[in-house]
Amino acid sequence: MFETAELGQKVSKQIFKDREPGLREALLMAQQRLKEADFPVIILFSGVDGAGKSETAGILNEWMDPRWVKTRAFGEPSQEERERPPAWRYWQALPAKGRVGILLSAWYSQPLLRRVHGGKRPEFEESLEEIHAFESLLAADGALILKFWMHLDRDSQRRRFKRLEKNPLQSWRVTPKDWEHWELYDDFVANAERLISRTSTGQAPWFIIEGACPRYRSLRVGEILLEAIEERLHQKEAPPFNGPSIQVGAGDLDRERDNGSGSRTVLQGLDLSKTVTDERYKRDLARYQAELNRLHRLARDKGVSTLVVLEGWDAAGKGGAIRRVMPALDAAAVRVYPFAAPNDEERAHHYLWRFWREIPRAGQVGIFDRSWYGRVLVERVEGFASEAEWRRAYGEINLFERQLTAHGTVLVKFWVHLDAEEQLRRFKEREETPHKRWKLTDEDWRNRKRWPEYELAVHDMIERTSTQGAPWTLVEGNDKKYARVKVVKTICERLEAAVG
Amino acid sequence: MFETAELGQKVSKQIFKDREPGLREALLMAQQRLKEADFPVIILFSGVDGAGKSETAGILNEWMDPRWVKTRAFGEPSQEERERPPAWRYWQALPAKGRVGILLSAWYSQPLLRRVHGGKRPEFEESLEEIHAFESLLAADGALILKFWMHLDRDSQRRRFKRLEKNPLQSWRVTPKDWEHWELYDDFVANAERLISRTSTGQAPWFIIEGACPRYRSLRVGEILLEAIEERLHQKEAPPFNGPSIQVGAGDLDRERDNGSGSRTVLQGLDLSKTVTDERYKRDLARYQAELNRLHRLARDKGVSTLVVLEGWDAAGKGGAIRRVMPALDAAAVRVYPFAAPNDEERAHHYLWRFWREIPRAGQVGIFDRSWYGRVLVERVEGFASEAEWRRAYGEINLFERQLTAHGTVLVKFWVHLDAEEQLRRFKEREETPHKRWKLTDEDWRNRKRWPEYELAVHDMIERTSTQGAPWTLVEGNDKKYARVKVVKTICERLEAAVG
Repeated sequence: MFETAELGQKVSKQIFKDREPGLREALLMAQQRLKEADFPVIILFSGVDGAGKSETAGILNEWMDPRWVKTRAFGEPSQEERERPPAWRYWQALPAKGRVGILLSAWYSQPLLRRVHGGKRPEFEESLEEIHAFESLLAADGALILKFWMHLDRDSQRRRFKRLEKNPLQSWRVTPKDWEHWELYDDFVANAERLISRTSTGQAPWFIIEGACPRYRSLRVGEILLEAIEERLHQKEAPPFNGPSIQVGAGDLDRERDNGSGSRTVLQGLDLSKTVTDERYKRDLARYQAELNRLHRLARDKGVSTLVVLEGWDAAGKGGAIRRVMPALDAAAVRVYPFAAPNDEERAHHYLWRFWREIPRAGQVGIFDRSWYGRVLVERVEGFASEAEWRRAYGEINLFERQLTAHGTVLVKFWVHLDAEEQLRRFKEREETPHKRWKLTDEDWRNRKRWPEYELAVHDMIERTSTQGAPWTLVEGNDKKYARVKVVKTICERLEAAVG
Repeated sequence: MFETAELGQKVSKQIFKDREPGLREALLMAQQRLKEADFPVIILFSGVDGAGKSETAGILNEWMDPRWVKTRAFGEPSQEERERPPAWRYWQALPAKGRVGILLSAWYSQPLLRRVHGGKRPEFEESLEEIHAFESLLAADGALILKFWMHLDRDSQRRRFKRLEKNPLQSWRVTPKDWEHWELYDDFVANAERLISRTSTGQAPWFIIEGACPRYRSLRVGEILLEAIEERLHQKEAPPFNGPSIQVGAGDLDRERDNGSGSRTVLQGLDLSKTVTDERYKRDLARYQAELNRLHRLARDKGVSTLVVLEGWDAAGKGGAIRRVMPALDAAAVRVYPFAAPNDEERAHHYLWRFWREIPRAGQVGIFDRSWYGRVLVERVEGFASEAEWRRAYGEINLFERQLTAHGTVLVKFWVHLDAEEQLRRFKEREETPHKRWKLTDEDWRNRKRWPEYELAVHDMIERTSTQGAPWTLVEGNDKKYARVKVVKTICERLEAAVG
């Protein structure tokens, strides 16, 4: 695979001098147009040590307007990073639409290093699958992804290290780790071949670049980048995308829709007559709050993080349930996030980006009042997301949640349900109570009119995203008190299973 | 001081029922108007354990629209927080303009606890001075700050703990730490008195609230909050502010200005003819890069963070200098931030907020291409900041930098200087080189016309903000190569002094 990158390709000073100014100018012009475009450019540098990864990134920074370029290099994960799923730090580093992000030793680095240092093949393959799904998700959202593998043959690498070491002013560039890696060269390259062949796709291609000659590699990378940006800018819209490998089969959904409003949904099976007496409510609530406090401390001390997601109809009582959970938790270890419509910065990223930002760290609790499920609920019903977008969202969400639960996060998802009559009663009560009137908006009335559409969306959501690691809990919410107890109790049960 | 909060003040159920709806409605209406207003509301809860700090915060969240309220409780600082100056985490939690931030056990908590656990009086007093300066800075920026001290007398606190402990479902609410604190009650209250009397100011007043009766304390806090927001909304503009205690005497600056353009500035004393031969440049650069790499690794391993600030004339060569610093640093431990005009979110906060966000953590390097000094340079000259604003900025910046250096951050500030002729030559060169043309904007030409005004602003800046812990380094930049070597060398010297 790397033969073409061991040809000793060189560019003379003169040729470089001739071609550099034109390339720089064209890159700058492309960058100007990119600023108005609706997609980010993600550039990855991986490869052999000494083949010019950071030097080439430096050149791109010099050639382009650095105000619109964000460069990040990744080493060993920090404590803060280790307290979240591995993908967390990469999400933080993704560029917004119209921007360029240069990532050095990003998501390919750790899996490859682990494999070379004795990691098992199946784990390695699983990492590649996850990376493939992640890149598919970014590409589906429009990201232009270019991956450069900077190559150097074994001998060239050794000669380079030796040369640097001989010069006392340059010897610091060669570390013991570099030599350690050099010893593993053959193994490294063999696994890199597997990595590249598995993850080089039309939507996120690898380019193998011979790294020995700085002029050659700079021009080559610059020209590939320029061509890719220009090509994308010329397209009227994002290329037709065939869907990520994790997509739900379209047929399944269609079947669902065909007999949608006619057949029963999972929601219709709920017994909304469930209720609880005042006395029992007080006793049970106190009991489960005490239990929750005990389990929460255990989880906190063990560094297990918890993410509680509350979805539900307008006026279903999500806020009231949250206020019964809060007193049982250590106030310094919990944060509540009410998610409304995304702001400009958030809209300039993948829709999952703003939720990734707030993933709780080890031992902490995040309570999300509405969540990423907006994609398959309000965005689907109101048409803010195209059909292709919300259809593939089920798979994207399952991937996201798998990353959370694989990390050990306890993910508790609630759908708080009520029937249309009870909702109407509460809307009217809000209308009549001055200090509750603000809670009721025109949007609530509009959403209410689309009840059957929302119900179908909820049904699909629950069916597609209730997984072993992240099941949905349906809460019978016609009786608020019953619902509150069920929420607190369910969190207890999930924590008990994780840390009890 | 706390006598009035030990009167056994109570509110009956009936009175509460009568007054709550009106108060809620008024608070919601005030919040609606606040959303359009130009100031944030910062609510602090401190006080005796069990006096209802988090309960009252919970009530406010219930009463107001939680989408515009951000609540944060602070416990022991996390690892991530400990790696930055203590003020860092509070800056992160500050609400934007138009929003309400509720902070539990924020900046008063640690100083008071340290003092009660044997901390020295002078340290405590110093903390109070710093808090006073910090609140002055927020108030000067328009923030409405309300501080509630929730009080409970010693016996009531004991009785409360005992009562809770007797109930098996509530006993978890009382922790060993609560009893430990109770033992220190007298000491705690004595120091709280000092704290309150030192930091209760017109711009950030304390309100002492008797915490025994939940209905009383909720209504009292709600009414104070309502009145304060309404009063501020009624004012045409922020109240006349007398300047923070850390302000530079206005007289000093006036003297400066009177003979400003006539007299010599510090810049005019620079020898811009300084130059370096190509050969020497290569040798020195390599030498100091090697040195920088060695010292950087030392600092990284010791957890010492570095912040390099580059200011200078347009085309002075800041970017070129940064590119000579970068190769000597571990790419994963350094980030470059080009600061341009603030975006909407940043503009909705204090001007220092966006810089606080990016303070490097332990062992990391942050390189700021332009910085908070924009306040006293471009914002002063272009009139984006009022005279009162940029005048008080010197003191605010010195406070900020003192917080950085007190934490152990190595702060290296450069002014890269050149003369007007050399700048013109570079502007023309940029005009004539296609791939450099983008670097030259109309703004650059506009700024150039205001050279004398900028020169005076730079002079004032250097004179007012060159401190022992954070001195300015003036870089003779007519010869780019000389400047680059000086930048790398200076960072070496500062690191050597810190970790060598």
